[in-house]
Amino acid sequence: MRQIHICEVGPRDGLQNAQHLMPTEAKQAWIASMAAAGIEEIEVGSFVPPKLIPAMADTAEIVTFALTIPKLKVVALVPNVKGFERALACGAHKVTFPVSASRAHSLANVRMTPEQMVEEVRRCVELRAQLGAKNGGGNNGPQIEAGVATAFGCTLQGVVPEDDVVRLAVMLAETGADCIALADTVGYANPAQIKRIFSRVRKEIGDKLEAAHLHNTRGLGLANALAAYEVGVRHFDSSMGGLGGCPFAPGASGNVITEDLVFMFESMGVPTGVDFDKLMEARKLLVAGIPQEPIYGHTPMAGLPKGFRAAA
Amino acid sequence: MRQIHICEVGPRDGLQNAQHLMPTEAKQAWIASMAAAGIEEIEVGSFVPPKLIPAMADTAEIVTFALTIPKLKVVALVPNVKGFERALACGAHKVTFPVSASRAHSLANVRMTPEQMVEEVRRCVELRAQLGAKNGGGNNGPQIEAGVATAFGCTLQGVVPEDDVVRLAVMLAETGADCIALADTVGYANPAQIKRIFSRVRKEIGDKLEAAHLHNTRGLGLANALAAYEVGVRHFDSSMGGLGGCPFAPGASGNVITEDLVFMFESMGVPTGVDFDKLMEARKLLVAGIPQEPIYGHTPMAGLPKGFRAAA
Repeated sequence: MRQIHICEVGPRDGLQNAQHLMPTEAKQAWIASMAAAGIEEIEVGSFVPPKLIPAMADTAEIVTFALTIPKLKVVALVPNVKGFERALACGAHKVTFPVSASRAHSLANVRMTPEQMVEEVRRCVELRAQLGAKNGGGNNGPQIEAGVATAFGCTLQGVVPEDDVVRLAVMLAETGADCIALADTVGYANPAQIKRIFSRVRKEIGDKLEAAHLHNTRGLGLANALAAYEVGVRHFDSSMGGLGGCPFAPGASGNVITEDLVFMFESMGVPTGVDFDKLMEARKLLVAGIPQEPIYGHTPMAGLPKGFRAAA
Repeated sequence: MRQIHICEVGPRDGLQNAQHLMPTEAKQAWIASMAAAGIEEIEVGSFVPPKLIPAMADTAEIVTFALTIPKLKVVALVPNVKGFERALACGAHKVTFPVSASRAHSLANVRMTPEQMVEEVRRCVELRAQLGAKNGGGNNGPQIEAGVATAFGCTLQGVVPEDDVVRLAVMLAETGADCIALADTVGYANPAQIKRIFSRVRKEIGDKLEAAHLHNTRGLGLANALAAYEVGVRHFDSSMGGLGGCPFAPGASGNVITEDLVFMFESMGVPTGVDFDKLMEARKLLVAGIPQEPIYGHTPMAGLPKGFRAAA
């Protein structure tokens, strides 16, 4: 049985930061192929203003398509109540809110303070409760995740105090959000910090702390994932091909790379539920869908070790 | 004070596997610049037949030069007694023997079985003792390291039984070699395996177990270094720019990358003694010395995080 839960965020975090656009049909084929490889959760898009991020303009269509894939949990990023309402209308299984621990990043990114963003999450939790009551009780809206962004440092602010991260995670948990993620949005984290902050936040909010959202900007993506695993994290966001990159760091990949993450855990004897060969098939559809975009991944280039047997 | 000891192996492992040759003068300038950045140990070459590996033909000259650099420990790889005698003649501070745990790799690489290689190491230890006796006692030959190669898997043999690795490490320690390294020669290792095998070997030979020699072929170099650190390893081999690569895996770097290794430990608050900015100056000399060769490294491309302070 799988012990690691991977949420593939390439169609959102990857494509949102890519230099080129992937056509809607190519996105659909790619998403379907990743689900076929055993990825059970995919962040397929972002309900942000299309004028701001053209790559996400087809998110409603992509969510609708993804909902037809059996067993797939379909996630959309939403930055505010308006985005949440669009996700509700489409029937996404889960939404994720990015809430920056860095005040500077929060203001630059969503023109709200972290505290205002917490209120935005709270309103969405309430909206979902009202909807549930109207439909005869029961919690039938999407799962709500709040991700603490820039939790390990910020390109604008530099150091982000750990107390700020813990406080924000607690505030978000208290809104009634179902789960909290910690995100190394800009690839500043190190393994010691990962262990320290995840442990501190877990002490405060327990198992509401769920995913590690890691970037590979300084090459520490897998080391940080390992550190998070060692302090009990079992949910990881990652992006096929390390898609998206960093516009300020040519050659540095974006999110931690799904293929290498799967290889690391499988080789450790920790099953991910993902079939590596089928993942390579999905990678071909990624390349076909956005051929000009640089993609990364060591294991795809080097191949599996001779005699390698996956744990799954 | 530094807590991590880095042995830079780029001039040997990197250049030996590079597609292009670096001129002798460029090697010298590069080695001097790395020493100036705070690298205290450099494997500068290999006493192998020049006909087999032209990139190492100037090793005697490079060792002689490197010995003029203050405080630098100068290491040369030697595959047999003949190589050891050449290293002796030059006055290298330390030699390192690669001894494959994989029988198939050993035969292919040095046309000897692992057991024959152990005898080769033993003869060199004896040679050094005789030399010491002749010079009025005292151990005035080079330090002798024996590295268990393919300790985590082999491209020819596939899986290498852990018992074989432990047994070989014990045999090598019993020759009187000063220190033992474990090498992931082909980039097959995973963090769980690293912890398991280093712990088993340490249990047998104690602090004679010294360095982790890791490759980054499947992107796990830093995660494996972290795992080794967590079970007490403090000596790491690494290569600037991940030089050397893997001829079978274009885009996959060679050894674990010095720059990223330094960044990982420094960011964790574990001092390496290396000045990152000066390391970047040395990297320029690497590029200048072998401009056609692909080199790697995330931190060099992305830069240090805003507000980053090294622990050193």
